[in-house]
Amino acid sequence: MTGSPVPPELYAEVLHFYARQMQALDGGDFESYAATFTADGTFKHSPKLPAAQTRQGITEALHEFHKKFDGDPVQRRHYFNHVVLEQQEDGSLSSTAYALVLTTRPGGRPDVGPSCVVNDVIVRDRGALRLKSRAVDHDQEFAAVAV
Amino acid sequence: MTGSPVPPELYAEVLHFYARQMQALDGGDFESYAATFTADGTFKHSPKLPAAQTRQGITEALHEFHKKFDGDPVQRRHYFNHVVLEQQEDGSLSSTAYALVLTTRPGGRPDVGPSCVVNDVIVRDRGALRLKSRAVDHDQEFAAVAV
Amino acid sequence: MTGSPVPPELYAEVLHFYARQMQALDGGDFESYAATFTADGTFKHSPKLPAAQTRQGITEALHEFHKKFDGDPVQRRHYFNHVVLEQQEDGSLSSTAYALVLTTRPGGRPDVGPSCVVNDVIVRDRGALRLKSRAVDHDQEFAAVAV
Repeated sequence: MTGSPVPPELYAEVLHFYARQMQALDGGDFESYAATFTADGTFKHSPKLPAAQTRQGITEALHEFHKKFDGDPVQRRHYFNHVVLEQQEDGSLSSTAYALVLTTRPGGRPDVGPSCVVNDVIVRDRGALRLKSRAVDHDQEFAAVAV
Repeated sequence: MTGSPVPPELYAEVLHFYARQMQALDGGDFESYAATFTADGTFKHSPKLPAAQTRQGITEALHEFHKKFDGDPVQRRHYFNHVVLEQQEDGSLSSTAYALVLTTRPGGRPDVGPSCVVNDVIVRDRGALRLKSRAVDHDQEFAAVAV
Repeated sequence: MTGSPVPPELYAEVLHFYARQMQALDGGDFESYAATFTADGTFKHSPKLPAAQTRQGITEALHEFHKKFDGDPVQRRHYFNHVVLEQQEDGSLSSTAYALVLTTRPGGRPDVGPSCVVNDVIVRDRGALRLKSRAVDHDQEFAAVAV
């Protein structure tokens, strides 16, 4: 709680990485989002669902998930906050961050939620930061357990 | 998507610039907000409105816009997220960021929205970061188009 | 408004400090939250309440405050934004940041609010950043005064 060996330059780089990554996701560019994972990366965007694996698998899972918005014009935005990084012994970074989903429809105000926490493992892959894994927890599913 | 030549120190400096700028705006200090633009800066805060130009023009446009809150005591807050920077060939930075407006009235809970995206061109002007231009898009006006 | 002598590395370090601190608070780890204050630190989390003092005092105040959630399973999240730092003459940093509270209950969507501003004094204490003081303002109590 009282400090971190993660250099501030790396912290800023991770914030920028997340900004690009999530603008790609919210912009419907699922291929670019999948490219922010390593070739063997895994993405578990709900505790109830199996993890998608590999970039192709992640891209397909996102197309499948977004079918529920067919005919429903929405703009989703994932707001991230309080990114905490820990250096791991194997050289990777663990990252825990808040994520709030906002969904806006034409002429409307944003719907707020769900409130989530993302749990990432970040590695440097040929110079670029990439996710080895992402697992997303949802507050509305866990609040009861936490108390 | 897999990296950026923008140094992390500059990224952190831009985040701090935005923090000061938006606290000034939300604090009703429109002159200080306008001073974050270059002398010939432009500010288009809605796709439907013409861009305000020069610091005096921006200050006047903000006073005009806020007349609708006369007699309506509100505290507005603009939350920014996912700032993406790109170095341009002319030495400027392009910046794309999420912006969520929260409006609180005495005794009440915040109203959420609109959900926006700001599109900035940032330059270094006698040592300080300043905006050459800002154009704001609104999700509720574009969601239908995006799908 | 046009720059800050606060180095960007320090700015990123403060963002990371806040991330750890607020994940501890929202996770119910009040002892770790209190440890982010100096030994003589003060925490005034509402203008209406006296400030809690010392780490033990802060921990006790938080346990007391959270009694209202006994039997009410909630997950609270404090989203921070627009952290503005100023170097003070005594070597400390003053920090002003937005803070939005989200409260999620099982199966529900997050309740939004209150919208707050935190006013911190940050010092470096044996290598680590710590708060010498934190005072929180609430928009719904002040919006009327501000206009």
